[in-house]
Amino acid sequence: MADSPNCDLKSLSPLQLFERVTEQGEKVRALKAGKAPKDEIDAAVRMLLSLKLSYKTTTGQDYQAGLPPKDLVLINNGTTKEEDEDLVDPWNVQTSNAKGVDYDKLIVRFGSSKIDTDLINRIERATGQKPHHFLRRGIFFSHRDMDQVLDAYENKKPFYLYTGRGPSSQAMHVGHLIPFMFTKWLQEVFDVPLVIQLTDDEKYLWKDMTIEKAYDYARENAKDIIACGFDINKTFIFSDLDYLGTSAGFYKNIVKVQKHVTFNQVKGIFGFTDSDCIGKISFPAIQAAPSFSSSFPQIFSGKENVQCLIPCAIDQDPYFRMTRDVAPRIGQPKPALLHSVFFPALQGAQTKMSASDPNSSIFLTDTPKQIKTKINKHAFSGGRDTIEEHRKYGGNCDVDVSFMYLTFFLEDDDRLEQLKQAYTSGELLTGELKKVLIETMQPLVAAHQERRKQVTDEIVKQFMTPRKLAFEF
Amino acid sequence: MADSPNCDLKSLSPLQLFERVTEQGEKVRALKAGKAPKDEIDAAVRMLLSLKLSYKTTTGQDYQAGLPPKDLVLINNGTTKEEDEDLVDPWNVQTSNAKGVDYDKLIVRFGSSKIDTDLINRIERATGQKPHHFLRRGIFFSHRDMDQVLDAYENKKPFYLYTGRGPSSQAMHVGHLIPFMFTKWLQEVFDVPLVIQLTDDEKYLWKDMTIEKAYDYARENAKDIIACGFDINKTFIFSDLDYLGTSAGFYKNIVKVQKHVTFNQVKGIFGFTDSDCIGKISFPAIQAAPSFSSSFPQIFSGKENVQCLIPCAIDQDPYFRMTRDVAPRIGQPKPALLHSVFFPALQGAQTKMSASDPNSSIFLTDTPKQIKTKINKHAFSGGRDTIEEHRKYGGNCDVDVSFMYLTFFLEDDDRLEQLKQAYTSGELLTGELKKVLIETMQPLVAAHQERRKQVTDEIVKQFMTPRKLAFEF
Repeated sequence: MADSPNCDLKSLSPLQLFERVTEQGEKVRALKAGKAPKDEIDAAVRMLLSLKLSYKTTTGQDYQAGLPPKDLVLINNGTTKEEDEDLVDPWNVQTSNAKGVDYDKLIVRFGSSKIDTDLINRIERATGQKPHHFLRRGIFFSHRDMDQVLDAYENKKPFYLYTGRGPSSQAMHVGHLIPFMFTKWLQEVFDVPLVIQLTDDEKYLWKDMTIEKAYDYARENAKDIIACGFDINKTFIFSDLDYLGTSAGFYKNIVKVQKHVTFNQVKGIFGFTDSDCIGKISFPAIQAAPSFSSSFPQIFSGKENVQCLIPCAIDQDPYFRMTRDVAPRIGQPKPALLHSVFFPALQGAQTKMSASDPNSSIFLTDTPKQIKTKINKHAFSGGRDTIEEHRKYGGNCDVDVSFMYLTFFLEDDDRLEQLKQAYTSGELLTGELKKVLIETMQPLVAAHQERRKQVTDEIVKQFMTPRKLAFEF
Repeated sequence: MADSPNCDLKSLSPLQLFERVTEQGEKVRALKAGKAPKDEIDAAVRMLLSLKLSYKTTTGQDYQAGLPPKDLVLINNGTTKEEDEDLVDPWNVQTSNAKGVDYDKLIVRFGSSKIDTDLINRIERATGQKPHHFLRRGIFFSHRDMDQVLDAYENKKPFYLYTGRGPSSQAMHVGHLIPFMFTKWLQEVFDVPLVIQLTDDEKYLWKDMTIEKAYDYARENAKDIIACGFDINKTFIFSDLDYLGTSAGFYKNIVKVQKHVTFNQVKGIFGFTDSDCIGKISFPAIQAAPSFSSSFPQIFSGKENVQCLIPCAIDQDPYFRMTRDVAPRIGQPKPALLHSVFFPALQGAQTKMSASDPNSSIFLTDTPKQIKTKINKHAFSGGRDTIEEHRKYGGNCDVDVSFMYLTFFLEDDDRLEQLKQAYTSGELLTGELKKVLIETMQPLVAAHQERRKQVTDEIVKQFMTPRKLAFEF
């Protein structure tokens, strides 16, 4: 690692340079405060100026104390966010706004790009398919380098998809399906390989759970994922605990990432502290490594540098900002990203839904009756207090959870628009809107359960066996 | 990890409890300084007292700020050691004494036990073999729980040996052979399985070196290790970069250790800082994991809890103090240890020898002529300035490097004693003592080179293939 200030500054990332300038600034202050010999202070100041110059050359920005380079704004568990900002990191999502997180602000803060009409049109042209309603409705709303993926695709250059899940409990809720439903669509329209990481090691590290339990959850969750309809010939699902011990390439990429990320950096990005276990501290490298095709020699025939595209919820972005920072320094392409909004809890869009509260969402194991009861009892309503008022003033779709759920699961655009107008005008009552949601979710969950029943242990084993997929590299 | 002070304190190790008391003390001070409400301060003080009580119950000692529990005295890169103490950790060995490190003091500081005559006699009785001259001459001088290993052995319970090497360069010197020569003897007299870890990942993380280079060095070093004469049916040599990707059990043990060690702990034990990469920070778990037999399911048929005995130089002890601290909390037996002294540089015993300075020792690749030149030119002499003075006052074997080397490599006790008396009395001159060393080392190195030539890539591959050994478990 770059411990000496004399090492090649050009090999440093913007964030590393930023930290070096900051450290050197502190050193100069300490020397001055300690009344060190003049030549020593002068040398330290010269080094500081040279570091600032390197910073400017690399980033195109002047160094400003406390302001890290733009592509890597820290989400420091709230410490760097402003008072009215939403809190978003892999373990916390908090907003005070009933409409949910302000995603436009998040794009600015994270330094990502908005998925705009131009990009959606371009995806339509490239694939010849109508864009998924998650794209049309802004559910996948932000990206990094998706244009480069399309450039490559249009030039017949291969890419692959990578997504994942932390298997924290046996029961998954409908919100967990969002990235998988979208990934399945991407796989179909682009016809590319897909790898799905189950971070059972992460769950073991973070939760009070045995290794065996975490691995059990991974296999159980794999069944729900497979039930989304992934193509067994084009999809590799892996548990970290399993795959790390069977892959020649995975650990090598992990250790490469681990060499190029300091504790200071993960502290800044993930808010780790000195009291955290070393497993948590080094884990981000394990989520980073599948972004590099050499982690899967069996799929890519050892070919490195195949472009990776990661569809995920925006809270996972910190992992991949880190990955994108490291990639060029280990000779790998930066993964591209497609970010989704959060799926709201039944109780309202202020928080991300929790798999540990059975009433916070509709679970994939719920019976039709449970679905009906939950929606009627818990789905936060944007309707008025009395029927009379509702008829007069209309309901508010922006905060109504039933309507939000329908934007995720009701594919028919016209029907959704009709419902919106009727609810907003007061023509449609909350109970009636909830009824539509119930009638949408019941068959959807029942169909999922039916497909899941078909997923035998043998099929799970096949998906999770490292192997060549139906692509030549 | 135990983040809440309300979790079960009994499950915490002495070091963890020590840290919790320290943290709680800081919290109380912060609350008082911040003029927090009285009930909040009172609650924090009650928690502090309860933690101190737990600490006393667990360790039998009163908590003293800044004084960690005895079994885990920190070697904080010099910050906690006293002025006149030797500095000993996996990366540094420094002493101001020409005789070398004060090993009796080190035993007290590290909280290990001296290998005394009783223990040596017991080893002789148990094995029916004359103890190795490394034992007779105090070269292996310290241990942890060797008596327990012997208890088990006498009750026909199995154990296994674990040692290793960080393959930092192609060239090994004769000092590197010490742990391997002794381990070979242990393997022969106890007839037990042996695993040898080559930490190529560590070298990649610490040095400016590619992964490929580190792995090359590992395989090259394996040849020199194999040339020591290990039994291919009883010995498994592995590179971390290789074996992590082929073992079902190794990563699971690594992640278990990583869950139970905090950054605070590795900071205290190894002196890591916030600027260190996360790979270094989590690496100690990778050196710890082979202490548990479940890391080698192919050797132990999946049997867990087989006792491990680790022969190593004393500078590696911090890794295994950490391992012994973690072991009971992950349901594993603590590994036992046998510690050797350091092998002195030709220039004198003040420092550990370095593989990067070709004149600092005799390398396994040296020609007879190079050996002769190095010893004559560089071996620090304990003789007098003139022949007259030497004849009159005699030489000093305690600081004479040629004599030290002979204690390592001249097996004949009587001859060594004669040399000592003759040199101390002044009868034997420095040049004559050096001649004995040259005549001892030349055939020893030549024989090693001869054996190494026989070690083909195929043999290396066999040693490094995960497989069952010639033992039933």
